[in-house]
Amino acid sequence: MAFNPTEHQHIRHNPLKDEWVLVSPHRCLRPWSGQTEAAEEEPQIFENPLKAGATRANGQRNPNYTSTYVFPNDFPALLERVPEPPPPEHPLFQSAPAKGTCRVMCFHPDSGTTIPLMTIAEIKAVIDEWINQMKELGRKYTWVQIFENKGAVMGCSNPHPHCQIWASSFLPNEPRIKDRCQKEYFTKFKKPMLVDYLEQELQKKDRIVLKNAEWVALVPYWAVWPFETMLLPINGRPQRLTDLTESQATSLAEIMKGLNTKYDNLFKCSFPYSMGWHGAPTGPSKSPQDSPHWLLHALYLPPLLRSATVKKFMVGYEMLGQSQRDLTPEQAAARLRECDHEIHYKNKK
Amino acid sequence: MAFNPTEHQHIRHNPLKDEWVLVSPHRCLRPWSGQTEAAEEEPQIFENPLKAGATRANGQRNPNYTSTYVFPNDFPALLERVPEPPPPEHPLFQSAPAKGTCRVMCFHPDSGTTIPLMTIAEIKAVIDEWINQMKELGRKYTWVQIFENKGAVMGCSNPHPHCQIWASSFLPNEPRIKDRCQKEYFTKFKKPMLVDYLEQELQKKDRIVLKNAEWVALVPYWAVWPFETMLLPINGRPQRLTDLTESQATSLAEIMKGLNTKYDNLFKCSFPYSMGWHGAPTGPSKSPQDSPHWLLHALYLPPLLRSATVKKFMVGYEMLGQSQRDLTPEQAAARLRECDHEIHYKNKK
Ligand SMILES: O=P(O)(O)O[C@H]1O[C@H](CO)[C@@H](O)[C@H](O)[C@H]1O
Ligand SMILES: O=P(O)(O)O[C@H]1O[C@H](CO)[C@@H](O)[C@H](O)[C@H]1O
Repeated sequence: MAFNPTEHQHIRHNPLKDEWVLVSPHRCLRPWSGQTEAAEEEPQIFENPLKAGATRANGQRNPNYTSTYVFPNDFPALLERVPEPPPPEHPLFQSAPAKGTCRVMCFHPDSGTTIPLMTIAEIKAVIDEWINQMKELGRKYTWVQIFENKGAVMGCSNPHPHCQIWASSFLPNEPRIKDRCQKEYFTKFKKPMLVDYLEQELQKKDRIVLKNAEWVALVPYWAVWPFETMLLPINGRPQRLTDLTESQATSLAEIMKGLNTKYDNLFKCSFPYSMGWHGAPTGPSKSPQDSPHWLLHALYLPPLLRSATVKKFMVGYEMLGQSQRDLTPEQAAARLRECDHEIHYKNKK
Repeated sequence: MAFNPTEHQHIRHNPLKDEWVLVSPHRCLRPWSGQTEAAEEEPQIFENPLKAGATRANGQRNPNYTSTYVFPNDFPALLERVPEPPPPEHPLFQSAPAKGTCRVMCFHPDSGTTIPLMTIAEIKAVIDEWINQMKELGRKYTWVQIFENKGAVMGCSNPHPHCQIWASSFLPNEPRIKDRCQKEYFTKFKKPMLVDYLEQELQKKDRIVLKNAEWVALVPYWAVWPFETMLLPINGRPQRLTDLTESQATSLAEIMKGLNTKYDNLFKCSFPYSMGWHGAPTGPSKSPQDSPHWLLHALYLPPLLRSATVKKFMVGYEMLGQSQRDLTPEQAAARLRECDHEIHYKNKK
């Protein structure tokens, strides 16, 4: 029998992390009788503490902001000033200093909106503020992680459109591994891994979801989550958010709106996910264009598998063995390509 | 100010995986207004397809088994015979053959029981069957992953006490990394990493949860999940489940009952988790005692953080940066030490 990737299980390599994912497309036939999630609720629009003018838990009042609004996280996982642990006495009991800061960034004054329902100009303001934050925090910190947890199923406690920014004195695991893998590839092939990768994908086309003048949204060959996507810049090889041109930033707003409209249209719900940015590490010793092995990219990691209420659980085998996916990345890309990227299901008459 | 690990954030190294976890104990003060889980329900005892004598979805009837019962998974992620993908044509698009088999193993005929409510003899029967399965499947497959997903929050669709066994022709990511890290340590220090580690922990004592003649249950120094524990054998350096002596197997049944009783007593609920076994890789080329860098161990990875209904979400920062925990491993161990390991809350009068 001939190998058919949409039908026959195989493992795939993720060169960015040097790890593998198990692809078992035949599992899509499996019935589901397990836990279902509550469908994401309509965002509440009253009394939300992230709203413009609202009073937060600590008694502070938000200004009547009209675009984005950034403030320090009231319960930060990373603090700026803390005593440092002593140097390790044994190789199996190593700890190290961790300093940092955590911020919350509201995307919009209105608690009832989301990225796909915002205008291009409003999304562009979000991107501009991301760039500002990266510029400011990147001067001091080795890593600035911008991420958005969206939806209750992703542990997000507030439906107001917002993201978080955690900046740290250390390089976290995920970017550390990606930095190493991209460096090795660059040394070997004299070209950035993701530039090579995007070239291939633009030829092959079967994992592309959406494309405009500056950006491509695709389901990576090694995607782990059912409808995982990656945003990659086409031109100029930006290494960090701070390298983006005006035209790239505007184009990014457009593709974010389009991709998120598709996501919402897929299961007719406000699509939950965690998303975030990965680019070259920052800090006082870094300067623009110093990391040619890097290509800036965003990741969308959405948990839904079959419908608005059935998610993929990454549990026993995934935690102890390795990630396993049911539909193939090519099938996921095809499903997303079919969804409308212009008209959001809520705006359909 | 002096560094206090229960108060001051730091990062800790996991030498088994060469990765780090962010420990932010001050976050325990954070109020929770996010998603809560339904408290785990009482296991249903009627019409459960895993029950002795029940008819499964595919029309097959279970025997009237009285102890453990193993059968092929009706929706396996791994099949034994499938066409193989062609050799990769590009370094960024690598896939490889994946063959294997998936089985389900019922622990007990009664859908209403769980490990902590079973007798030592009943749990011992589970362990004996694990050893049988490892023996049989390990002859053919490179990796045999025994794992239990317990509770709806862990994607477990059936409350009947059971585990799964996924055997594969490839070595999955997690054991591959652990194999490498333990080998490197062994080469450098001429001793198995986990033997050294356990010696240290038995002296330090602050992460030990439970101990008997043959086993120790402890919260690893680098634990990621709030109440994560590891079971380590004290004597004889077994590398695989198949190396266990009778006395080790019986002692294991005892510590499993004790640890799970503590877990259930912690939040007065049937404690959800994924658990599983890691030991030296298997397969036709392997023989007993050929992997001295390995020490067999079990992992319990439970998601609950604050109560029976509030779990830790491993989302944005954890997916894109690195794992982050709130209470320290030492605090978790102390909480678990305080819980009764003999009398289950359901059996208290
Ligand atoms: O096989 P089950 O119990 O239906 O499925 C569960 O465990 C599997 C192995 O960890 C996961 O791949 C599934 O996402 C999860 O729902
Ligand atoms: O800060 P939040 O939104 O309350 O918290 C959420 O995101 C964090 C960062 O990914 C996680 O550590 C928490 O487990 C999650 O509940």
